[in-house]
Amino acid sequence: MKTNGACIAILAAGLLAGGAARAQGAAQWQALPTVAPAPADNPTTPAKVTLGKMLFFDPRLSSTGTVSCFSCHNVMEGGDDHRPVSIGVEAQRGGRNAPTVFNAAFLSVQFWDGRAATLEDQAKGPPVNSIEMGMKSLTQVIYRIRRIPGYRPYFERAFGSGDVVTMDNAAKAIAAYERTLITPGSAYDRYVQGDHSALTPQQVRGMDAFAAVGCASCHQGPNFSGPPLPMGQGFFMKFPVYPHSPYVAKYGLMKDPGRYDVTHNPADRNVWRVPGLRNLVYTAPYMHNGSVKTLPEAVRVMASAQLNRTLTAQQVGDIVAFLQSLTGPFPRQTMPRLPPTPGDLLGR
Amino acid sequence: MKTNGACIAILAAGLLAGGAARAQGAAQWQALPTVAPAPADNPTTPAKVTLGKMLFFDPRLSSTGTVSCFSCHNVMEGGDDHRPVSIGVEAQRGGRNAPTVFNAAFLSVQFWDGRAATLEDQAKGPPVNSIEMGMKSLTQVIYRIRRIPGYRPYFERAFGSGDVVTMDNAAKAIAAYERTLITPGSAYDRYVQGDHSALTPQQVRGMDAFAAVGCASCHQGPNFSGPPLPMGQGFFMKFPVYPHSPYVAKYGLMKDPGRYDVTHNPADRNVWRVPGLRNLVYTAPYMHNGSVKTLPEAVRVMASAQLNRTLTAQQVGDIVAFLQSLTGPFPRQTMPRLPPTPGDLLGR
Repeated sequence: MKTNGACIAILAAGLLAGGAARAQGAAQWQALPTVAPAPADNPTTPAKVTLGKMLFFDPRLSSTGTVSCFSCHNVMEGGDDHRPVSIGVEAQRGGRNAPTVFNAAFLSVQFWDGRAATLEDQAKGPPVNSIEMGMKSLTQVIYRIRRIPGYRPYFERAFGSGDVVTMDNAAKAIAAYERTLITPGSAYDRYVQGDHSALTPQQVRGMDAFAAVGCASCHQGPNFSGPPLPMGQGFFMKFPVYPHSPYVAKYGLMKDPGRYDVTHNPADRNVWRVPGLRNLVYTAPYMHNGSVKTLPEAVRVMASAQLNRTLTAQQVGDIVAFLQSLTGPFPRQTMPRLPPTPGDLLGR
Repeated sequence: MKTNGACIAILAAGLLAGGAARAQGAAQWQALPTVAPAPADNPTTPAKVTLGKMLFFDPRLSSTGTVSCFSCHNVMEGGDDHRPVSIGVEAQRGGRNAPTVFNAAFLSVQFWDGRAATLEDQAKGPPVNSIEMGMKSLTQVIYRIRRIPGYRPYFERAFGSGDVVTMDNAAKAIAAYERTLITPGSAYDRYVQGDHSALTPQQVRGMDAFAAVGCASCHQGPNFSGPPLPMGQGFFMKFPVYPHSPYVAKYGLMKDPGRYDVTHNPADRNVWRVPGLRNLVYTAPYMHNGSVKTLPEAVRVMASAQLNRTLTAQQVGDIVAFLQSLTGPFPRQTMPRLPPTPGDLLGR
């Protein structure tokens, strides 16, 4: 396994030691918590969640009034957009696959390249990305929210009176809502909590194989995105580790320099935040560039490009079956009601 | 008032006779029913509504996977898209303002030009409109739905077993869902049902003025879109009736030939289905071309272009206050859950 200097967290020692043992006996398997952690300066409250849900679904936060957070993070399906890359305002294509918003609350950094330390920071990115939501500035975003008078009471309920309709508060509210978008209670979670009937024999074999072949060296922890780390400290990994894997050229896996775009440190070329693996059934296609269409192929690609291994068909099938057990019940949600808009808010 | 041959329904005789009387005494005021009518071959059932809601929100029914019925008929706001004209796939702009889906169930024809007789027919339009959802054919639409295996059980629950995943059934389900998108119980409805405290004195004055100046000659019935008519028989009107109104040039109100595009009958030039007036607070901007930004201006435009009248500021204010009383409580809805997609369904 290749680590990558300062930007890659040290893997938990001895992680793989128990990998070949029966899965249910391995201490590293952890269920997803039923409440997501929140930063000290933004505790999750019902009033913030209510406001954040409204803003999350509001397309008026984009230049054309057609793209909301929901557009690329479809919480009615997998929290992503089932496309290789997203489409923002004016039909512009982005360069990377939209990560699911589900369980993003358990990631210690946000975006594929970890360029945001918190969900609060992340929420300020897409609105002013020229390809995504196309607003000229965060000032323009909050100006537009202020032009919708019906929002003010929701900001006041969440943040008190006074000058509370601010971009910082809008981002806090969106982050608070996103911390409710978690999916504990999957078959896997029930299994590691002691319900041994929750997984099929094939899924248990897949769980063993997942650890034995080395997937769990990165995809560990309750969200399979690495060990729990302080917010802002990312868990990164080189991808691909084996650039001569035939899949690397086939799927163009080295074209995007990844975290290098953020740090301009040569050691960060093709380095990525380790993504979680929950609800993969809902988030095809896969990889940072959305190039891999099916889950079995994704397993083969990762085994080859990261571990220099060719899995047997049975191993692939078993691991896929295990990954399917990570699909949780999604939070039941009511639809928000958005306040009306002045008629001159949006142009042609 | 000018009527327009065969395509314009005969107005109820004597409609304006009581217009100058106290509004609450006028027999023509009708509350919105609490259940929408449904055609004999598509009774509204919970299973159809469940499926229809899923399809309504599913962007995979568009060529790019980014545009759903919901995109232009935002049921979290006014059932429209708060834009002058909608934006479909590949950033294409349409030519007309998206009508609200709320209370469309009470219209006897669909679309601004009345080209669909039923909600079922309407639902088959936008998916194959090259500007809107961009699918090549309805066959391609249903093929894509069939490629999402999780839909089948919902079709079977709604329509029985066998070859039920059909475009006709998809349209029936969407229509059934739309028949639940109604907003009875507005202040106006409560007023005409006997609660005389439901309207303010200004709103009652506006109600009187609305009838007295002639608005109610077209905007009558429980949905203010004309008298109840058999499904498929539209209630149409020339707009503008007075082409020399200064507003006609200012807002380009004669550029679109309206129903003429459907019938190619010269008498249908600038003829339109009379739209409903409920929830106008939520549906700015106004008119078939979305050119009029505020409700007071819309009232001035209509008075001038349809009735050749210039209203006083008080009349405008009173009528706007009355129109605001037509805002109903919107149906509380849970979010649907969409079935997962195969990873090769949508391209770049």
